[in-house]
Amino acid sequence: MALKPNDHDFKPRYVDMLFLSTSALTVSGLATVAMERLSSSQIVVTTLLMLVGGEVFVSMLGVFCRTSKPSVAELTVSRVNSVRTIELETIDSISTVDRIESGTDISVKDSSQSSLKYLGLVILAYWVFFHVAGFIACLVYVSIISSSKEVLRGKGINLGLFAFATTVSSFANGGLIATNENMLIFAKNSGLLLFVVVLVLAGNTLFPLFLRGSIWTFRRFTKNEDIECMLKSPKEIGFDHLLTNLGTFFRSSTVLGMIAFMIMLFCSMDWRHPVFAGLNSYQKVVNALFMAVNARHAGENSVDCSLISPAVLLLIIFMMYLPSSATFMPLKEDEEKKYVSEKENRSGTATVLKMLLLPQVLAIILFVIVACIIERRRLVLDPLNFSTLTVIFEVVSAYGNVGLSTGYACSRLQKLHPEMSCVDQPYSFSGWWSDEGKLLLVVVMLYGRLKAFSQRNGKAWTLRG
Amino acid sequence: MALKPNDHDFKPRYVDMLFLSTSALTVSGLATVAMERLSSSQIVVTTLLMLVGGEVFVSMLGVFCRTSKPSVAELTVSRVNSVRTIELETIDSISTVDRIESGTDISVKDSSQSSLKYLGLVILAYWVFFHVAGFIACLVYVSIISSSKEVLRGKGINLGLFAFATTVSSFANGGLIATNENMLIFAKNSGLLLFVVVLVLAGNTLFPLFLRGSIWTFRRFTKNEDIECMLKSPKEIGFDHLLTNLGTFFRSSTVLGMIAFMIMLFCSMDWRHPVFAGLNSYQKVVNALFMAVNARHAGENSVDCSLISPAVLLLIIFMMYLPSSATFMPLKEDEEKKYVSEKENRSGTATVLKMLLLPQVLAIILFVIVACIIERRRLVLDPLNFSTLTVIFEVVSAYGNVGLSTGYACSRLQKLHPEMSCVDQPYSFSGWWSDEGKLLLVVVMLYGRLKAFSQRNGKAWTLRG
Ligand SMILES: [K+]
Ligand SMILES: [K+]
Repeated sequence: MALKPNDHDFKPRYVDMLFLSTSALTVSGLATVAMERLSSSQIVVTTLLMLVGGEVFVSMLGVFCRTSKPSVAELTVSRVNSVRTIELETIDSISTVDRIESGTDISVKDSSQSSLKYLGLVILAYWVFFHVAGFIACLVYVSIISSSKEVLRGKGINLGLFAFATTVSSFANGGLIATNENMLIFAKNSGLLLFVVVLVLAGNTLFPLFLRGSIWTFRRFTKNEDIECMLKSPKEIGFDHLLTNLGTFFRSSTVLGMIAFMIMLFCSMDWRHPVFAGLNSYQKVVNALFMAVNARHAGENSVDCSLISPAVLLLIIFMMYLPSSATFMPLKEDEEKKYVSEKENRSGTATVLKMLLLPQVLAIILFVIVACIIERRRLVLDPLNFSTLTVIFEVVSAYGNVGLSTGYACSRLQKLHPEMSCVDQPYSFSGWWSDEGKLLLVVVMLYGRLKAFSQRNGKAWTLRG
Repeated sequence: MALKPNDHDFKPRYVDMLFLSTSALTVSGLATVAMERLSSSQIVVTTLLMLVGGEVFVSMLGVFCRTSKPSVAELTVSRVNSVRTIELETIDSISTVDRIESGTDISVKDSSQSSLKYLGLVILAYWVFFHVAGFIACLVYVSIISSSKEVLRGKGINLGLFAFATTVSSFANGGLIATNENMLIFAKNSGLLLFVVVLVLAGNTLFPLFLRGSIWTFRRFTKNEDIECMLKSPKEIGFDHLLTNLGTFFRSSTVLGMIAFMIMLFCSMDWRHPVFAGLNSYQKVVNALFMAVNARHAGENSVDCSLISPAVLLLIIFMMYLPSSATFMPLKEDEEKKYVSEKENRSGTATVLKMLLLPQVLAIILFVIVACIIERRRLVLDPLNFSTLTVIFEVVSAYGNVGLSTGYACSRLQKLHPEMSCVDQPYSFSGWWSDEGKLLLVVVMLYGRLKAFSQRNGKAWTLRG
């Protein structure tokens, strides 16, 4: 799509370029080519695609679109409202626009309009800050710490380009890193891993928490009523990442709780296993933290996923499957209470798992079945690499736009077929799939990303207990 | 629990007997001992446990309990009602009793009471008919068809006992068959397989359809108003398997549609594969039908599940996971419409998948993770038998009380470890699990069965699209 080969030695196939572009734009991070074979300009293009596809950037664009054209928006809104008064009884599609405007009079409309402007500015500042600070910190780190510097020198990767690509990719939760081994080659550089962890959290799952923090900071400098109003009744703004205090608390504690649980399970299951070979205790915990944070959305890996024990792999599949808005919260505090059925309110259910779980199970099962049909020969011939679990892992990873992959190991093939020749390749497991399988994953990545967008428009998925 | 060893050669361990009793009582059908090693009296006890645990029997008991003690029931009801008038605003637990009584006056109460009696009689006749007819048909079949007769003679199994156990087990959807190979040894006896298919459908998934048919037949002989009333407004009876015409239609077409889909996929994926080796085209289709019907609840197998291709295995897992009440239906026709949230009604969603899908996903993932933790050593040592997929398969099979199992093959172990000695055993995969693993499955089976009961008490799980 956007990427043409620059290097004359390297002629990637069209399907691989399509796959990589989709993967970058949907911030999935699966790759069917070795990253180091890409030219610098291809890396830049890929990085820009991730920049554009990242959650913070997309939501910022949404806010600016709504502030820059107030007249048109209002026009639409008034038309929508007049239509809605007629159809109110039958249709109730709560779009973002509706949510700001319905039940509010003109004065509130103006106030929320100016709140929106402030919000846009805050997000822009937030976005610029993390990119600039991230780039500088990353550049300084790889320039100072000799081990990482030498790795990059040895690979002939420009330090600046690496810092830029890594910062953007981590903040956008894209997961594509300019090295063949992703972050696995930096498994011992705990500093770099922790720095990436912060960027990853800031760019997606903990964005609501950090955003609220930023707005508080912003308020200190400019005493403004709109900001007060924004903090007190975030519902009127209709911005998905701006929640009430309590909402932010529940969202964030869900994120942190899952990370803690995953670290515990990972460390207790794999402490002495090959997956952590060569690391000291501190590095093991940092790597477990890195994987726990990346399993939710970013998909960078500092360990070999195929060596992780099955119990942890299953947990990772579950975490990849959860959308970033998944929240465990008591029912009554939920600002989207109106979506919860009457029955439930009455039956006094104490807790509700608010997540996008349900009809999506069906979609994933279908995708996996189709993938198994497409790759049926390999599933029989090479069951250690093409086990059904790895196929499920890859499909869920594409679906959740995460990009973790169990990879492919020739050693596993040759355990069963010692006579077959095979050369290991430093790309995702999907790189070994047939073209039809790759195209299926392209569809799954797009579907997964679109699902996230459709979800944004006020539809709440509730897990009823 | 109920089973003590009779045969002096055979001293089963306590955990295996606990497992078998639970498996029979919850009509799961997993077994950790070879069935032919059980004595006749043990087979009888197991069969009686399945008889008692079967869906039709349990629901019949429910009806008779409600009819036999009208005075006590009414007393309870009136007390419940007086309490409810106070607590109406806060508590709304719609139990079966509440459902009959609330919103109906005394006269309707009497009428529904006498309808209940008729219903109980119809179900009793239905239940007796299928057992007697099934037993006779099965006995005649194995006595006449020489191939099946010789198999049983060779194994020293009494023909009458086999016919009795097979009939009860199939009708109760228990899945335990007195032969080591389950129905695999009868794969070429299409007549027997088709006969079992009818029993299995009559005893669970198509019970609502057959019940309605029986009531219609019953009406021909006795012109009674209560029966008319029962057929017209089945809601007032509050019996889960008595649905409206439309409800019956949707429930049954869901069942038949899934069977048809599964047969199509199975035949197209595995037509020339070892799983169907030695069968002619007609037998292949009959075996596919048999597996499709048994994947929903009964869990008898006429082919080796470990040879089924992954795509079909995934579909089987999905079908095992679905409760027997799963129904695809348009929203408006649903008689449990009140459970569906207001929001959904308003948003004009056309279709709703009505199934128990949601919080159960979480339970299953947790169970599988625990199973993987318990069996972690075997998962590493013997990945072809203990692949994560087979563990998932076993857990879902126990959870759905289905009882299909991929089994265990020494040939797969010895592919990777030719030096290890190993003797194949004719029981479920779970028979190879550790004691802790077996106990976990006992818990899962009980949980799965209780889930089905709790679900019966008017809680509707809805898949929101
Ligand atoms: K990603
Ligand atoms: K069963």
